[in-house]
Amino acid sequence: MTSFDPSTLFRARGCSRQWLGFVRALAEEFAAELPEHELATLMARIGRRFAHRHPIGECVALGEVETAANRIWGEVEWGQCRMEEQAGSVEITHAAPPLAVALTGMDWSDGFLAGVYEGWFQQLGMLAGLAVNAERPPAPDLRRLRLARAV
Amino acid sequence: MTSFDPSTLFRARGCSRQWLGFVRALAEEFAAELPEHELATLMARIGRRFAHRHPIGECVALGEVETAANRIWGEVEWGQCRMEEQAGSVEITHAAPPLAVALTGMDWSDGFLAGVYEGWFQQLGMLAGLAVNAERPPAPDLRRLRLARAV
Amino acid sequence: MTSFDPSTLFRARGCSRQWLGFVRALAEEFAAELPEHELATLMARIGRRFAHRHPIGECVALGEVETAANRIWGEVEWGQCRMEEQAGSVEITHAAPPLAVALTGMDWSDGFLAGVYEGWFQQLGMLAGLAVNAERPPAPDLRRLRLARAV
Amino acid sequence: MTSFDPSTLFRARGCSRQWLGFVRALAEEFAAELPEHELATLMARIGRRFAHRHPIGECVALGEVETAANRIWGEVEWGQCRMEEQAGSVEITHAAPPLAVALTGMDWSDGFLAGVYEGWFQQLGMLAGLAVNAERPPAPDLRRLRLARAV
Repeated sequence: MTSFDPSTLFRARGCSRQWLGFVRALAEEFAAELPEHELATLMARIGRRFAHRHPIGECVALGEVETAANRIWGEVEWGQCRMEEQAGSVEITHAAPPLAVALTGMDWSDGFLAGVYEGWFQQLGMLAGLAVNAERPPAPDLRRLRLARAV
Repeated sequence: MTSFDPSTLFRARGCSRQWLGFVRALAEEFAAELPEHELATLMARIGRRFAHRHPIGECVALGEVETAANRIWGEVEWGQCRMEEQAGSVEITHAAPPLAVALTGMDWSDGFLAGVYEGWFQQLGMLAGLAVNAERPPAPDLRRLRLARAV
Repeated sequence: MTSFDPSTLFRARGCSRQWLGFVRALAEEFAAELPEHELATLMARIGRRFAHRHPIGECVALGEVETAANRIWGEVEWGQCRMEEQAGSVEITHAAPPLAVALTGMDWSDGFLAGVYEGWFQQLGMLAGLAVNAERPPAPDLRRLRLARAV
Repeated sequence: MTSFDPSTLFRARGCSRQWLGFVRALAEEFAAELPEHELATLMARIGRRFAHRHPIGECVALGEVETAANRIWGEVEWGQCRMEEQAGSVEITHAAPPLAVALTGMDWSDGFLAGVYEGWFQQLGMLAGLAVNAERPPAPDLRRLRLARAV
């Protein structure tokens, strides 16, 4: 930690130091062994397992999905999400996940969030022919996912 | 938590949720019972006790004091400090302490940091006729203390 | 940390290191300034303020109070409680609060839990002529409170 | 959390809730894809990368290795280790790692600790023809590793 900027210091504390080193070593090992698109796929499988163990519960409207997701994210200090219905897709923005702190610049790690949201939409029966994929993030700590027709 | 700004979300995580409610209730009780200058004095006494339990060790140059202080602050995730020698005083800036997150706007809580630094300078024998006092902070998460001749 | 026993190591981690030093310095200052019965009373006032900021919500049966309390304690990693109706009183046992880790042996710190529970029962309108008081704890990490007719 | 035993409650808090779900989902995915001996090998590769990023520093005697290791483990709240010279081997006991809380019963996860210790002994030049392997743990929260001639 060489910066003296409060935001940078708070951001660094945004990932539990107990697991920071483990997660970085894990990512390094993954990145050394697998090509980038397989990394994202592996992370998505882990994300779907997370969703399975943290079920979203019953939700009808998209606002309820957002609220239920934020209840789960809040409990584990993983930041917050917003979901916005758009033409033919749902745009999901996830702010301040600890994974972004641990693995800054490794965009394939968004696969995890993609897998979690896909798992949740699957539980809700909203996934006929749809998939959740990561898109270019608007900012390092704002990750962007989209539920849309699978290509 | 209603904000969606990553900085705000990271800042909120900058104070352990285990103690946030306790510290706020404590501050509310203090503020209800004591006038502001006594609040700062009480916090300073607590700070000096903290310094006594977390001795700064041997330091000769001011840079060593800064390093030793940051080692202690780093271990407990209390942010970081910088110390700068000025004409007749030492200016201490402390970035991102969790107390600023818990007690935003309660400037009397700077008394704690003032007491800690004063305790450390006392251990180093640097305090003949000097005292550490809080000054107007340059920003909510940048607290300003000054070691100078006691008024 | 000199012990090598896993239980002791886990217990030590049961209080966030960010606030351990602050809380101990605070307790030391309190204990130096106030007699023991006033310490418990001060802690109880802080506890009631905590209850006010963390309302228990609507509960009818005692089991619902226990569940609602454990939801709040769970969110902040303060352990768990059990409530048991007895002749003319409710016995509350609170397991593994971080305050017991921080302030081992300072039984007056139970005043905080007593104040929180009293605040919650007050919110529920269950307090006509009753009070919550701490009793001798069955074990260092099992604190005992009782809702009973105020003496 | 259904237990009311303080030890069980403290143990549960021994793994940061921020990463518990992630680590469990990760382990589930690993265990579904790889046979057990490859799981341990994968964990060991991750462990060696951790050691590389957290160098043990200069140590001559085994007691210094233990102290340096515990400084690193202490900073990240990973419990503590003891190292004991025996005939032709060094026995390492590691108490209270959060991995044991997250992945209780998955003994292959000891591969991580084996890899970390092996990486550290490699940095110290102590590894000619030797390897670190996990052995049957004396207790769920006491993991056992051994530095010995590679088989």
